[in-house]
Amino acid sequence: MHNMEIDLDPVFYPKSIAVIGASANPMKWGWIIPANIISGGYTGRLYLVNPKYDKITKLKCYPNVRSLPETVDLAVFTVPSRSVPELLEECGEVGVKAAIVIAGGFSEVGNEGKRLEQKVVNIARRYNITLIGPNTMGIYSAPVSLCALMPPVRPIKGEVSMISQSGNIGTNMLAFGRVNNVGFNLFACSGNEAMVRCEDYIEYFGQDPNTKVILAYIEGIRNGRKFMRVVDEVIEKKPIIVLKGGRTRSGAKAARSHTGVLAGEMKIYEAVFKQLGVVIARSTDEMLDLAKAFTRVPLPKGNKVGIITWGGGYGVLISDACEEAGLELAELSEETLEELNRLLPPYWSHGNPIDMVGDMNREAHFKCLEILVRDKNVDAVIALGLITGMDFFEAFRNFDFVPGEFIEVFSSMWKNYDRIALSKIKELIQKYGKPIIAVTLTAEASKVQSVMDEEKVLGYTSLERAATVLAKMYKYYEHLRRKKSVRGDRLGSP
Amino acid sequence: MHNMEIDLDPVFYPKSIAVIGASANPMKWGWIIPANIISGGYTGRLYLVNPKYDKITKLKCYPNVRSLPETVDLAVFTVPSRSVPELLEECGEVGVKAAIVIAGGFSEVGNEGKRLEQKVVNIARRYNITLIGPNTMGIYSAPVSLCALMPPVRPIKGEVSMISQSGNIGTNMLAFGRVNNVGFNLFACSGNEAMVRCEDYIEYFGQDPNTKVILAYIEGIRNGRKFMRVVDEVIEKKPIIVLKGGRTRSGAKAARSHTGVLAGEMKIYEAVFKQLGVVIARSTDEMLDLAKAFTRVPLPKGNKVGIITWGGGYGVLISDACEEAGLELAELSEETLEELNRLLPPYWSHGNPIDMVGDMNREAHFKCLEILVRDKNVDAVIALGLITGMDFFEAFRNFDFVPGEFIEVFSSMWKNYDRIALSKIKELIQKYGKPIIAVTLTAEASKVQSVMDEEKVLGYTSLERAATVLAKMYKYYEHLRRKKSVRGDRLGSP
Repeated sequence: MHNMEIDLDPVFYPKSIAVIGASANPMKWGWIIPANIISGGYTGRLYLVNPKYDKITKLKCYPNVRSLPETVDLAVFTVPSRSVPELLEECGEVGVKAAIVIAGGFSEVGNEGKRLEQKVVNIARRYNITLIGPNTMGIYSAPVSLCALMPPVRPIKGEVSMISQSGNIGTNMLAFGRVNNVGFNLFACSGNEAMVRCEDYIEYFGQDPNTKVILAYIEGIRNGRKFMRVVDEVIEKKPIIVLKGGRTRSGAKAARSHTGVLAGEMKIYEAVFKQLGVVIARSTDEMLDLAKAFTRVPLPKGNKVGIITWGGGYGVLISDACEEAGLELAELSEETLEELNRLLPPYWSHGNPIDMVGDMNREAHFKCLEILVRDKNVDAVIALGLITGMDFFEAFRNFDFVPGEFIEVFSSMWKNYDRIALSKIKELIQKYGKPIIAVTLTAEASKVQSVMDEEKVLGYTSLERAATVLAKMYKYYEHLRRKKSVRGDRLGSP
Repeated sequence: MHNMEIDLDPVFYPKSIAVIGASANPMKWGWIIPANIISGGYTGRLYLVNPKYDKITKLKCYPNVRSLPETVDLAVFTVPSRSVPELLEECGEVGVKAAIVIAGGFSEVGNEGKRLEQKVVNIARRYNITLIGPNTMGIYSAPVSLCALMPPVRPIKGEVSMISQSGNIGTNMLAFGRVNNVGFNLFACSGNEAMVRCEDYIEYFGQDPNTKVILAYIEGIRNGRKFMRVVDEVIEKKPIIVLKGGRTRSGAKAARSHTGVLAGEMKIYEAVFKQLGVVIARSTDEMLDLAKAFTRVPLPKGNKVGIITWGGGYGVLISDACEEAGLELAELSEETLEELNRLLPPYWSHGNPIDMVGDMNREAHFKCLEILVRDKNVDAVIALGLITGMDFFEAFRNFDFVPGEFIEVFSSMWKNYDRIALSKIKELIQKYGKPIIAVTLTAEASKVQSVMDEEKVLGYTSLERAATVLAKMYKYYEHLRRKKSVRGDRLGSP
């Protein structure tokens, strides 16, 4: 199938939608999906279709797609697999442009299912209907506020688009995005990919001006040649972050019973991904980490890291993590060393990592940070413990060994410093164009993570994750640089 | 130094303590440390010592250690390094049994510091004082509720003991333990280890009847021979989980300026750790994961994992994670397959992982879990998505497409299932003696993590972490089995 044959506009920008198989039973997908579309705030017109009902709650229900007051752009099928061919044929006859088939029971369950799927594809082709799925959890589109999804997820709108060969993993990424302040623009569970495949979505996202970062959960690729061509083109404009399921014999076996795809030889995938400059995520958590990174900070233009740490042991661990991830510790310039000598107590570490040695003068920490970021030898900064999230004297409240006023003053000052740290980080990124990654060391990790995410500061609760993300960003930068230098382009900001 | 020369009882079980260098300034350690000891609820007698004060708040302050009403077991020094020798000499003369020297400025800062440290050690040896540090953040002892620590951490009491060559990492582990419901019994920051070393603490924790699991953050080992002997002995009784800092060239360099220790060649450490059966943690997070695992579930007696999952994509990823960690997916027995055929819809995965395919009948999930746990081919179970932490219909509240009563009933039922899942897991562990690890897949990860920790269910928010932990537990079990079989012991429960 040529690309030109696939039109995803009616899927992601439908003016009207029909749910074929709408139900009055809240335990049925025929109820939950339209409920998601309505309560998700879809900006177009929605019609419910089922000959069994005149109304579902307050909404009119139509007996079939012919009886609708207009020809809808998109039909969402919530009927069992065996009913799909006939109803899709009807959609084709009235001129529906796209269909999402939710039901499973197709190629993933054996030969009979395969035949049924082929029948559905043939109908779709005959009527030029763009077919999503079958066996899919649906799609999301921020521009028309469309949550045509099985689980009741309400994503935040943003710059990330995703294609997922797993419904649970995909829709969970939307939910994690909501909790972590990562917004999505377009999203699809590709299901069995009977017609529209992983590589088609990537191509579409590549052309979408509102998509800055592409995520893909992939178990297997059906058209390797197209995948390679598309990724090679798109990746120059935006990073493509791939989590590959079915990397092992056991995983590949599980994938066969999941979406019926052949997971293939992981060594080949790894080699292809590497050659194409794909950013490889090792887990759903890392995929989210990377989505944050690529949307929140500029790319590092080298692999020399400057580190500021509140505690020597953490300085050791982050040095290990950086080197293990393929980064190098920057050699601080003479100017930087002199400036730090003037600023810090004489027993400071006199090198990178800069250990603030438990010094409670947090104004000095902010100055250190700027000195480090502007050092010409430093391409990126990891700041450990700068955001403490800590009420240092909390343990002493209502304890009469303590002057109460002091505690109050100190605590509010300390809290205020966290807010200052967050805006300082954003200001310095703006000013110097280098990435800064914060790592909070506090045990109240999830609390501080929320604060950092709220402010869209790139921050993690794990120093290993910070180092991994930075190394992967640098690899992507290097891939772009090599590609451009091969072509003789002038190197600008990618 | 022979083991018999080091007596750690006065450090961890002191009947009385003097803080030498107590202060009235809440920004000084001389104030914070006694405040921690008092508000931490120390069960013994505490004396403040400083000739500058008669009183600090309501407490009497003594001019020197001679003027105290009794000979204290332990002196905590919060004076600058240069004052330590003279004051320690005084302690020696009156018969103080142990001293913790908080100040830095000793061997970690160069030759002059090294000489000062040697002088302090000589005094301690002359008077038979057990010397902790210098350059330490202190110790914690649950049996006497002693928080002789720099940061205001209040650990939960429990079965884990820890030695840390980093104050920040060590005391942070206590704080993380508090948030994650991991309790500690004994804890020490070993600092520069001028006298008492990492291996001495491990030996002591090995003999401590209330310690079930030992954690160690290690940058370098000063007495390799003793370390190997001690670990080899202790590890038969309890697991020793080690996080090694200074694994790389950069990390080792940072370690030199941190505690002055030589981090050494990581390949040698890895080989020694492996030979001794040490459980290697790769991060502080993993150290905590492992501490939970070893205190909450029995050891797996084989590497065959049974998996139950709510979603096929996650089944693929957990299969990959298990195989990559060195585990194998169990081949389900005929009986199990038959039982599951009777229980699950016909399109279930018919093998391991058991994909519950979005089935909302959660009673059936619990039955699946028990069928899986009791299968003779299954050594351990990972349950994905069994605890949802999810209010499935939350998105539909106050939305008039929805029958309100239904939502209420469904939501409370759904919530109740999470509680049932938690007790079911604990019940099945008890009944079958096999480890069960829960992995929540919800985006409200930190919320569900708290609930699982509160109930002391072994649960994670990352399936990769679950697989890694299980694989490391199995390796430890195998080490014990091999050791016993070499000696010809009958194999029992380790």
